[in-house]
Amino acid sequence: MTQNRRFLLVRRPQGGPAPDDFRLEAQPIPALEDGQFLIRNHYASLDPAMRGWMDAAPSYMPPIPLGDPVRASTVGMVEASRNADFPVGQWVMGLNAIEEYSLGALGGFTQPIDPAAVPSVTNYLSLFGAVGLTAYFGLIEVCEPRSGDTVLVSGAAGAVGSLVGQIARIKGCRTIGIAGGAEKCRRLTERYGYDAAVDYRGKDMAALADAIREAAPNGADIVFENVGGDVLDAALMNLRHGARIGLCGLISEYNAGQPVGARNLWQLIVHSASIRGLLVRDFLPRFAEGGAQMAQWLGEGRLTFDEHVDEGIENAYPAFMRLFDGSNEGKMILKLAP
Amino acid sequence: MTQNRRFLLVRRPQGGPAPDDFRLEAQPIPALEDGQFLIRNHYASLDPAMRGWMDAAPSYMPPIPLGDPVRASTVGMVEASRNADFPVGQWVMGLNAIEEYSLGALGGFTQPIDPAAVPSVTNYLSLFGAVGLTAYFGLIEVCEPRSGDTVLVSGAAGAVGSLVGQIARIKGCRTIGIAGGAEKCRRLTERYGYDAAVDYRGKDMAALADAIREAAPNGADIVFENVGGDVLDAALMNLRHGARIGLCGLISEYNAGQPVGARNLWQLIVHSASIRGLLVRDFLPRFAEGGAQMAQWLGEGRLTFDEHVDEGIENAYPAFMRLFDGSNEGKMILKLAP
Repeated sequence: MTQNRRFLLVRRPQGGPAPDDFRLEAQPIPALEDGQFLIRNHYASLDPAMRGWMDAAPSYMPPIPLGDPVRASTVGMVEASRNADFPVGQWVMGLNAIEEYSLGALGGFTQPIDPAAVPSVTNYLSLFGAVGLTAYFGLIEVCEPRSGDTVLVSGAAGAVGSLVGQIARIKGCRTIGIAGGAEKCRRLTERYGYDAAVDYRGKDMAALADAIREAAPNGADIVFENVGGDVLDAALMNLRHGARIGLCGLISEYNAGQPVGARNLWQLIVHSASIRGLLVRDFLPRFAEGGAQMAQWLGEGRLTFDEHVDEGIENAYPAFMRLFDGSNEGKMILKLAP
Repeated sequence: MTQNRRFLLVRRPQGGPAPDDFRLEAQPIPALEDGQFLIRNHYASLDPAMRGWMDAAPSYMPPIPLGDPVRASTVGMVEASRNADFPVGQWVMGLNAIEEYSLGALGGFTQPIDPAAVPSVTNYLSLFGAVGLTAYFGLIEVCEPRSGDTVLVSGAAGAVGSLVGQIARIKGCRTIGIAGGAEKCRRLTERYGYDAAVDYRGKDMAALADAIREAAPNGADIVFENVGGDVLDAALMNLRHGARIGLCGLISEYNAGQPVGARNLWQLIVHSASIRGLLVRDFLPRFAEGGAQMAQWLGEGRLTFDEHVDEGIENAYPAFMRLFDGSNEGKMILKLAP
């Protein structure tokens, strides 16, 4: 009988996740009750936010219970069903877990998707998933870009950041991306259309602030923040009056023992500036609008995006850890079905 | 001939201001040029923001030059004039300095005031000055209170904080004030009408967060922040979805060597919350509106405010330092004329 291999969280990470915090375990596939359906997961999305769900601290979602598989968005196909809305053969996406099979049910987050509508079904985990919608609503609604604004993006070579820069350019903004290393900085300007790139590697906060100032002598109207720590502190030293900082993530501190936050917070007073936290699910009622806009821009050849697909549930740990060492190029996805 | 005693900044403070950072010096009163007028300062406002102006770091105002008197808002009377708009005997307020005489000129910040319009001419440095307008515009415009909101105020017994709580109550909010010590907490509920008071003394961040949670079990819709450090971090652990934090000041770190900022910044993401810096001068075109509203509430007996007046320019240093040890009760004012 077929087994369901699942990537379980068995211990809460202390700082950086260790291999022993997880266990790959084969478990029986549960029998379906009325209204349920069985999803064969083909791809799982690996996102920095998942690190937060592994902690016991209260957050916008309950912590992943120890012994449960690691929560993740997946794309898959219905393989068995006792639910007329999700017939066998239907492609679906939803908030499931890193496991070969997930149980879908009424009232869950799972929704049908059409693979023919997109270049690759994996795009539902990148451009047409939380990543693309985060870039879209985070920039448009949280940061409110105006034509001529200078937009500074950290983690600019990442899945979200690479899209934010392109959307900002479409909106008539000048864009400056921050990334780690010469190769990524080259990608920013050559592949993602950033007007300028700043390499944070080998720079302390003051040197990074100087480098940003060189690229944006009049300061930033908008900061789209994915990183935190010195990168955020350096951005705070380069604000224009009334600057809007959209806080999407703080990946530099997810594996740190203590939160760092925004040490140069006083600059918000100096410049009447703001920091606003961003949860894409706040925009759930408008997801269709965001997806349609992204599809239009994609069709017009105005968006470039990348996916980095690692294969096999047995590689879940090293694939996830790429998010923190920056060795991925594009949206991190784990392929679960052959 | 009469001399002008001036409280000069002669060295930039390292951490907490020391007596030797300042010098009281008698200088000649300058002769008036056409368009100028001489103000006999009666009262100077002592405000936490002045500590920032003493640093060399770039801010929303240029640093006070070494050797210059310490910049301060004052209330005084025109004693000599070569400006028809400011005749001798006219009461004025303006951004001047801690000195017995200031030179007024066209195009400065100085404006005529009417002592008969207020209970005490000092009120132009408290309820009808930057303090009152900061409380008014900071709460109403930056924090956008709605009836039924829970409003958490730090530095709640201070000049701004005591007014914020009262305005929030007028707007139909439930108010919780944070202050240091049982006596101040008693003032919060008994004198300034706070619904609940939280004493930060003797509590670490976690204990303070617990105490806030007890007073606001559902969290805060609004935080009006004057303090920073552990107080802000504890407030961040008690936000409701979409909470608005108005950042008015960070007095706990003005004398610290290193900025602390908001360590629990990640909570902004968890709750889609925001922090917005507040500079009252952004609302300059609406000062008359704010003053009129405060006057109306005062006339209706709905506002209680306190002024703490120390006497004599020779006491400028200890009077200023009260802002940091919390030994003042009400808006800190220095009386300069007998």
